[in-house]
Amino acid sequence: MTTLDDCRALDAQDPLRPLRDHFLLPEGVIYLDGNSLGVMPRAAPARIADVVAREWGTDLIRSWNDARWFDLPQRLGDQLAPLIGAGAGEVVCTDSTSVNLYKVLSAALNIAREDAPARRRVVSERSNFPTDLYIAEGLCRERGLELVLVEPEDIAAALTGDVAVLMLTHVNYRTGAMHNMAAVTADAHARGILCVWDLAHSAGAVPVDLRGAQADFSIGCGYKYLNGGPGAPAFAWVHPRHADRFWQPLSGWWGHAAPFAFTPGYQPAQGIARYLCGTQPIISLSALQCGLDVFTAAGPLGGMAALRAKSLALTDLFIRLVEERCAGHGLGLATPRGHAQRGSQVCLTRDEGQGVDGRGSGAYAIVQALIARGVIGDFRKGDGGQGPHKDILRFGFTPLYLGHEDVWNAVEHLRTVLESGEWRRPEFNQQHAVT
Amino acid sequence: MTTLDDCRALDAQDPLRPLRDHFLLPEGVIYLDGNSLGVMPRAAPARIADVVAREWGTDLIRSWNDARWFDLPQRLGDQLAPLIGAGAGEVVCTDSTSVNLYKVLSAALNIAREDAPARRRVVSERSNFPTDLYIAEGLCRERGLELVLVEPEDIAAALTGDVAVLMLTHVNYRTGAMHNMAAVTADAHARGILCVWDLAHSAGAVPVDLRGAQADFSIGCGYKYLNGGPGAPAFAWVHPRHADRFWQPLSGWWGHAAPFAFTPGYQPAQGIARYLCGTQPIISLSALQCGLDVFTAAGPLGGMAALRAKSLALTDLFIRLVEERCAGHGLGLATPRGHAQRGSQVCLTRDEGQGVDGRGSGAYAIVQALIARGVIGDFRKGDGGQGPHKDILRFGFTPLYLGHEDVWNAVEHLRTVLESGEWRRPEFNQQHAVT
Repeated sequence: MTTLDDCRALDAQDPLRPLRDHFLLPEGVIYLDGNSLGVMPRAAPARIADVVAREWGTDLIRSWNDARWFDLPQRLGDQLAPLIGAGAGEVVCTDSTSVNLYKVLSAALNIAREDAPARRRVVSERSNFPTDLYIAEGLCRERGLELVLVEPEDIAAALTGDVAVLMLTHVNYRTGAMHNMAAVTADAHARGILCVWDLAHSAGAVPVDLRGAQADFSIGCGYKYLNGGPGAPAFAWVHPRHADRFWQPLSGWWGHAAPFAFTPGYQPAQGIARYLCGTQPIISLSALQCGLDVFTAAGPLGGMAALRAKSLALTDLFIRLVEERCAGHGLGLATPRGHAQRGSQVCLTRDEGQGVDGRGSGAYAIVQALIARGVIGDFRKGDGGQGPHKDILRFGFTPLYLGHEDVWNAVEHLRTVLESGEWRRPEFNQQHAVT
Repeated sequence: MTTLDDCRALDAQDPLRPLRDHFLLPEGVIYLDGNSLGVMPRAAPARIADVVAREWGTDLIRSWNDARWFDLPQRLGDQLAPLIGAGAGEVVCTDSTSVNLYKVLSAALNIAREDAPARRRVVSERSNFPTDLYIAEGLCRERGLELVLVEPEDIAAALTGDVAVLMLTHVNYRTGAMHNMAAVTADAHARGILCVWDLAHSAGAVPVDLRGAQADFSIGCGYKYLNGGPGAPAFAWVHPRHADRFWQPLSGWWGHAAPFAFTPGYQPAQGIARYLCGTQPIISLSALQCGLDVFTAAGPLGGMAALRAKSLALTDLFIRLVEERCAGHGLGLATPRGHAQRGSQVCLTRDEGQGVDGRGSGAYAIVQALIARGVIGDFRKGDGGQGPHKDILRFGFTPLYLGHEDVWNAVEHLRTVLESGEWRRPEFNQQHAVT
């Protein structure tokens, strides 16, 4: 059996421990929701204050040049690139994940339309992150294409000769299950299908090798594992073989070949600048830089490989402790045990009918009771027994700032909440409008 | 002849003078570029520091509820609405101007496709702000529609039976010329054409009455006259008669009827939430609120009507002083003299061949020399004698923080730069890579 002392010993030996000091962690909180909104880097308040007071307040319009606002999307992209197996000059940080997905999916469909006009389908997973499906649905509706949604085990069979694009999220937001990007991409390519990968739950969480996998297009999120701040701009990557064929209808001024010539006709810039559209929120973009700086600091400590090893150690530990210490309370495991199939989160299930008075699963109330104790995870609703998806208690593990003792303490809170029946209290069973 | 004392007397009587204290104006600067990037409200640093340190740093994911991030786009929209003649619940602040234009133009074309499928043209002005034309071009290319660009005097003649949408910017970015929104919209509607208005140089600068004009769709910019900070999110408005028909392909999670139900199919929210797409940059969005707060403070002082009166007084004064004090230096006036045709900026022209050694117009160098003296305006390149557009010296007048004495001093600097030949110095004649 693992003990608290074991956990402390592991933390004492942890070479990544100094990275925790790069963050301001709120007092009394064990934050297991970095896959929803990452915590604040310690450098962020001063950096943002400088952007506001000096770059905006004092230097004003001159900051386009002097503070290099103009190439900030590319500079941040270059800083992010090593985390996802991209080269320099291949990534931009800009817009939202949804808007970037629209761009790259449009571009992929434009290439497919030229090269294989008979291919009229986009395939994705039914349990992909909903906004990805909504964007694909909007685009398919606009173009008269068909969006085909399948279960993960049916993806290979769905890759038929009429498919233009396979659009997947690398790590599933509900379960933490991870695709084998290289194998899936190779399979799709062998059938003439382009691959779009969403790295929302991968960038900064697991090693990604977009170039190694020969992926075609990719996008991802700045405010989860990259700790870029609430609603931080997202990113987009395009394999260099497609860069100069990249065409998308969000053709705004910042993607123009001569953005300050103010000519009436659109000429896309060479290379990645053409993935840009309108003027970017510079203050939020600067906050993202603080998040990326921590990964730069992690480089000499082993970078993504070391972070991955620690992430797996933490999620292994969490699974083991839950199974050892919280047995008999109806929890199941939604996240794969195999390391190659797991992202940086652990999702527990609870069956329908285990809630208060047999109504619902009680998972929502357990998450609320944990939050009241300062253990912040989140709840993802299942299909209420109507389908295969159970209610989920979701816990993200960010190796940059979490330790083994945090995991121990989180599980102890979970055990107490379950054993004491604390989760049955009425205040934890009233579902809030938002969350 | 107007004197400096006259200007000081006018400032002493100015009922809007207290609004100047809502801004931090850099020492030694006369800022005539608020139509490019507005100055910083005094409240911004503290407000943003609180969003960063407390809402993000301490409260983290709980701020979606506790700090009301979730309805921030609508709350800011409601605060902005009175400035543009919109009702409560009709405006959202979100994304970039370019992305919002894509949304509303898509929606307008979708409505036209249903109601009048034979209409296959979009009409705009050739000298519209380029990014608007680029977005329209991208969308028309995608849908196989024709984008027709005409000179302002030819708009009426271009509104033929095959036109679906007329897309105009209310105040021209190059000249400051303002359309009669109500008349143009009525003319277009009489011919069965929907109207999309870009308010980038209008919102916060001139009174706008979208509902009174019966406009169909509108978008605008947060970082110019609204002083929302660099790259602040933009806004979108839809007339209530179209709100529930509004459909656009950027159908992200934040526009969903049940954004936290995580269902795979897209169902647009009722009303304005459907204009939203992905997660917004909360820090930048919060800065925009500081800009809007100043307009709220301006309400009891007379609001947009008082601001308009002062804006016209300042631009009248600038024109008069330039003509009185800078005569004989080859400057012309691009901005209309008639109040009904003028926005809140004055654009001066200079003919080709008047630059150093007869090369170019010298306008760029004059602007640079002014900037070196702390008088910040900007330069917009003409067509180098190839067409009707001369080089432009562009000066924006924000009545929130500028006074008559500022105008006097700006013209004095311009006079000195011209009379002394200071603008001929080599350092002012080297065009920079960016602005």
